[in-house]
Amino acid sequence: MIVVLKNGVGQEKRDQLIDWLKEQGLKVHISQGEYQTVLGLVGDTTRVDMDLIGSLGIVDSVKRVSEPFKCCNRKFHPEDTVVQVGNVKIGGGNFCLMAGPCSVESEEQIVAVAKAVKASGADMLRGGAFKPRTSPYDFAGLKARGLEFLKIARQETGLPIVTEIMSIVDLPLFEDVDVLQVGARNMQNFDLLRELGKTSKPILLKRGLANTLKELLMSAEYIMASGNEQVILCERGIRTFDDYTRNTLDLAAVPMLHELTHLPVIVDPSHATGINRLVSPMALAAAACGADGLIIEVHNDPIHALCDGAQSLRPEQFDGLAKKIRAVREVALA
Amino acid sequence: MIVVLKNGVGQEKRDQLIDWLKEQGLKVHISQGEYQTVLGLVGDTTRVDMDLIGSLGIVDSVKRVSEPFKCCNRKFHPEDTVVQVGNVKIGGGNFCLMAGPCSVESEEQIVAVAKAVKASGADMLRGGAFKPRTSPYDFAGLKARGLEFLKIARQETGLPIVTEIMSIVDLPLFEDVDVLQVGARNMQNFDLLRELGKTSKPILLKRGLANTLKELLMSAEYIMASGNEQVILCERGIRTFDDYTRNTLDLAAVPMLHELTHLPVIVDPSHATGINRLVSPMALAAAACGADGLIIEVHNDPIHALCDGAQSLRPEQFDGLAKKIRAVREVALA
Amino acid sequence: MIVVLKNGVGQEKRDQLIDWLKEQGLKVHISQGEYQTVLGLVGDTTRVDMDLIGSLGIVDSVKRVSEPFKCCNRKFHPEDTVVQVGNVKIGGGNFCLMAGPCSVESEEQIVAVAKAVKASGADMLRGGAFKPRTSPYDFAGLKARGLEFLKIARQETGLPIVTEIMSIVDLPLFEDVDVLQVGARNMQNFDLLRELGKTSKPILLKRGLANTLKELLMSAEYIMASGNEQVILCERGIRTFDDYTRNTLDLAAVPMLHELTHLPVIVDPSHATGINRLVSPMALAAAACGADGLIIEVHNDPIHALCDGAQSLRPEQFDGLAKKIRAVREVALA
Amino acid sequence: MIVVLKNGVGQEKRDQLIDWLKEQGLKVHISQGEYQTVLGLVGDTTRVDMDLIGSLGIVDSVKRVSEPFKCCNRKFHPEDTVVQVGNVKIGGGNFCLMAGPCSVESEEQIVAVAKAVKASGADMLRGGAFKPRTSPYDFAGLKARGLEFLKIARQETGLPIVTEIMSIVDLPLFEDVDVLQVGARNMQNFDLLRELGKTSKPILLKRGLANTLKELLMSAEYIMASGNEQVILCERGIRTFDDYTRNTLDLAAVPMLHELTHLPVIVDPSHATGINRLVSPMALAAAACGADGLIIEVHNDPIHALCDGAQSLRPEQFDGLAKKIRAVREVALA
Repeated sequence: MIVVLKNGVGQEKRDQLIDWLKEQGLKVHISQGEYQTVLGLVGDTTRVDMDLIGSLGIVDSVKRVSEPFKCCNRKFHPEDTVVQVGNVKIGGGNFCLMAGPCSVESEEQIVAVAKAVKASGADMLRGGAFKPRTSPYDFAGLKARGLEFLKIARQETGLPIVTEIMSIVDLPLFEDVDVLQVGARNMQNFDLLRELGKTSKPILLKRGLANTLKELLMSAEYIMASGNEQVILCERGIRTFDDYTRNTLDLAAVPMLHELTHLPVIVDPSHATGINRLVSPMALAAAACGADGLIIEVHNDPIHALCDGAQSLRPEQFDGLAKKIRAVREVALA
Repeated sequence: MIVVLKNGVGQEKRDQLIDWLKEQGLKVHISQGEYQTVLGLVGDTTRVDMDLIGSLGIVDSVKRVSEPFKCCNRKFHPEDTVVQVGNVKIGGGNFCLMAGPCSVESEEQIVAVAKAVKASGADMLRGGAFKPRTSPYDFAGLKARGLEFLKIARQETGLPIVTEIMSIVDLPLFEDVDVLQVGARNMQNFDLLRELGKTSKPILLKRGLANTLKELLMSAEYIMASGNEQVILCERGIRTFDDYTRNTLDLAAVPMLHELTHLPVIVDPSHATGINRLVSPMALAAAACGADGLIIEVHNDPIHALCDGAQSLRPEQFDGLAKKIRAVREVALA
Repeated sequence: MIVVLKNGVGQEKRDQLIDWLKEQGLKVHISQGEYQTVLGLVGDTTRVDMDLIGSLGIVDSVKRVSEPFKCCNRKFHPEDTVVQVGNVKIGGGNFCLMAGPCSVESEEQIVAVAKAVKASGADMLRGGAFKPRTSPYDFAGLKARGLEFLKIARQETGLPIVTEIMSIVDLPLFEDVDVLQVGARNMQNFDLLRELGKTSKPILLKRGLANTLKELLMSAEYIMASGNEQVILCERGIRTFDDYTRNTLDLAAVPMLHELTHLPVIVDPSHATGINRLVSPMALAAAACGADGLIIEVHNDPIHALCDGAQSLRPEQFDGLAKKIRAVREVALA
Repeated sequence: MIVVLKNGVGQEKRDQLIDWLKEQGLKVHISQGEYQTVLGLVGDTTRVDMDLIGSLGIVDSVKRVSEPFKCCNRKFHPEDTVVQVGNVKIGGGNFCLMAGPCSVESEEQIVAVAKAVKASGADMLRGGAFKPRTSPYDFAGLKARGLEFLKIARQETGLPIVTEIMSIVDLPLFEDVDVLQVGARNMQNFDLLRELGKTSKPILLKRGLANTLKELLMSAEYIMASGNEQVILCERGIRTFDDYTRNTLDLAAVPMLHELTHLPVIVDPSHATGINRLVSPMALAAAACGADGLIIEVHNDPIHALCDGAQSLRPEQFDGLAKKIRAVREVALA
């Protein structure tokens, strides 16, 4: 950590700060520039409150030179983490295709979609039972009943299931779920993260709408520091001024995260764009830049199907896409 | 709600859509333009899934012409809501000054700060007991013990207390707290909002880092739709590409929210800027544009004081500011 | 265009507005909702000042239902535009690979890079002679001399050249350049766009750092409305709060622009990310989602080469990438 | 400047880099941390290409510890710059109120508005003759004729005039204009900035829609490095995801810029919000946080007036506001 002092700071104040830093267990290197004094802090700076130091009256700025995350840092763990769910592996060269409807609507619906996506080569079934909705008047999911339908679909197809958990009070209901998803809006619900860190289930952690990669990694760190190292990161679009797409899918996050961390990184092109015509090109792009998996919305609902609806693909669209995804990946990673 | 159809949509598909919309209980006006057909939907469109319709294959775009929020909408409730906490009123011309340390650190600290800010004219005491932190390694607050110290400070000064609640499992601990704060990161923790809507306590709802005013109002709607109409909105800065300040304080949100809603609107200049030298100018600016209150960080901690620290003001700085805030407000609203 | 009136607007004011709108040559459909009156404007609304109407005292909001761009709108011109430069074609199924150094530094350098990228299959040579720099103290390019070196490299390799023009006063110097590039910072330099519209040269128009797709298309419209229909659009990253990459490459812009316009769309992964390790994955992603071309920085400068420098690729890195790009594109568009 | 090397960089590569840095005339301090080597560069780092170093293969990151701007840096010029235009002063405690219509429409209009705003206490007259418009089909101003009308209004009222220049080819037309405005879209039109730096006229430089404060200061630096130190900075709103207001007015920029630079800082609340009902609260907020001036749109056009139009204020609204602005400023800066 680098602390730049302001011009003309007196000897006494400077020494008070240095003494205080040393009390925190840090070594302090002093380097005197033409206009500024720079302190180099060496030691475990993970626990140092950068904001506090940065706002001290004699400090011009503070800059970290090492990342504040440890468990998920590739520097301290160079080999890829492989998350395993039954026979399905994610990361370390293993690609995982997750697919299914936005919401679980009925037993028939989820079983039918599960069979369809399995036939097209999906590795895991997704489906929302607890749904975060911006409006209190919108459909919030079938909840416990939706989880039951998901398990039936798993039984019928053998596909492991991934679904969103919104609150730690619901945790007992998710005991038999394979992968627990933390949605974008809960990426910094730290209590939830800490509790999930005490489970032994893989966690699919979605990036928040306006969160940096560092914050995403710090949220993974919450889970891992509590003891659970099975974390899958998911890029799902960030909020910008853009008006034609719902969010801006930040695909450069995929190779960047691969540099920073050993955790697998997947992409959700459905929520990122909100437009089903963009799902295929963005899925192929994600495969081309090295994503370890994709999570794609597929439905077979007649109202939607009638009108070619929403951000979801129809099973036959997904079928064509699934083949291409694997082919593109093969060529790109060759 | 306005639905614009794509060029060259056939009669049959168009009629299917219109029939489906009518089944949702809406009246449909058809208006045929040169290039496009526009459907005007009349009725209760609050429950209509705009995203779904917008993504239908025959639909070019969907636009709301009325807001999706009701309880907090000024159109249906023209008079200002006044939130009352003991003798303290917020909104409807009543200005409320909340002040106190970022974190409750000890009984001595919180009592001393409480006495100081009371002497300077503060109306309410703030102080964090449960602290959301980006890093799992950072200090997360004194929790239950911090709440006890806050209550002691209340007893000593008579100031009502406002403090953040992060999880519904902690709700019983907050029974004797005056105002419950929902932090920016939890603005869309819908389970938490719904539970807080079942309490009878005033809720201080902070705007999320990248949330629109409409989303802020939809989150207020969650609380109000569950039965609790005592909601105070708080602008605390949004995330932009800016690098000199921590966040960008969006002060135009104050008069804009006053147009859209009858709820009181306060401003947090301390978290918005992250730099104590900017707190005073931004507090005065907030008062000048009509904020119903301010929530300001004040500390008396010697380490901080030594170095003029952090985003907090020292009691003597707050003292001068408090006077000016009321003077500016008086002139601006004259 | 849809104009939503405010609640309780009187008959007289409403009729004044309707009369004024009719004077602008528009037909006005009135539709009376439960809470609001909505006016549907039919006719040529391209010239209607939406901001003006939107801010009238009796107007709640204004929404366009048709795009304000015409020349570049796919609705009025369904077939892809193919831009041709010598034997090189861009768009309509023709993929164009542009490569070369950030700056032209010397005759030797540009000729050497040109030969190298040609050998790897590049179709066009890029190289900056006039360089926009944030700081007045940074190297601003070799200017006229740089253009001469580019022409020598063209003569040696047969590759057409594309280079940035920053000011209309420099236009005579660019007479013999093949493709004129408008940089991100000049995307809304309307005088420059209008003058370039009077030339007969293909224009490579880069999206501004914080511009919407609609604004990019309106800037293309400036060029086309002045008579030049040879416009190539370029996505090069937008500014967000992200800190690990320089900008956020918005790849969903590629398929979205393909829907909205018939103009070819290329991608610049070098400037978008600013990190050479990310150039290859992003180039492959762009090819996978249907870009009509790529513009990639390649250098052979020894200082850079020594240190594996900057956002540029070395010729041998580019060589491997070029092959993969075409292979990925083939599979993705199959 | 701080250069952090990657883990495990060999001695030889490290020394090559250090030698190269020394050749640039810099002193290099080496500090060896637990995991990383940090180089501290001392000397004139203004001309060092941070992007280049940052992307070298052996470099983890580069951070500036001193600003890259000099002429406008308060560190090297602690006293406020006062820009003087006739008898009107801006900065150093002198407040300047600029007002007038968005566009000059006719001699009658501009003279009438000029007289009105002068009567209300305005110090300078604004009015657009050359108008940057997103659409090529929109009214682009009266150009040379508009400048003539502005001069007539100046003659009638004695108010100095400020108006936008879009291109250096128009410079001769502006010879008799008092203050030249550079619009937000041209903030990084470096050729224009450099040419304006060769004039002796005060320049009103507006912040670009998505530019940082550092970039704004670097653009001021362009003008000043060319010899013209009469620069007025203007905050006019930045682009965010917000949908209710046109832009987000970043008022914290005012005190932040006052720390960083000695140049005067004014605020444009009209363009920032785009909604005339928000202009007054935002103008008062700007005055309260220490702005050195305001530039406000005022019109007397009957179509606008009829409907309470656009983002402009009517003269009688401005009259009330002007008094309040000065009163708020007096109280806030007391």
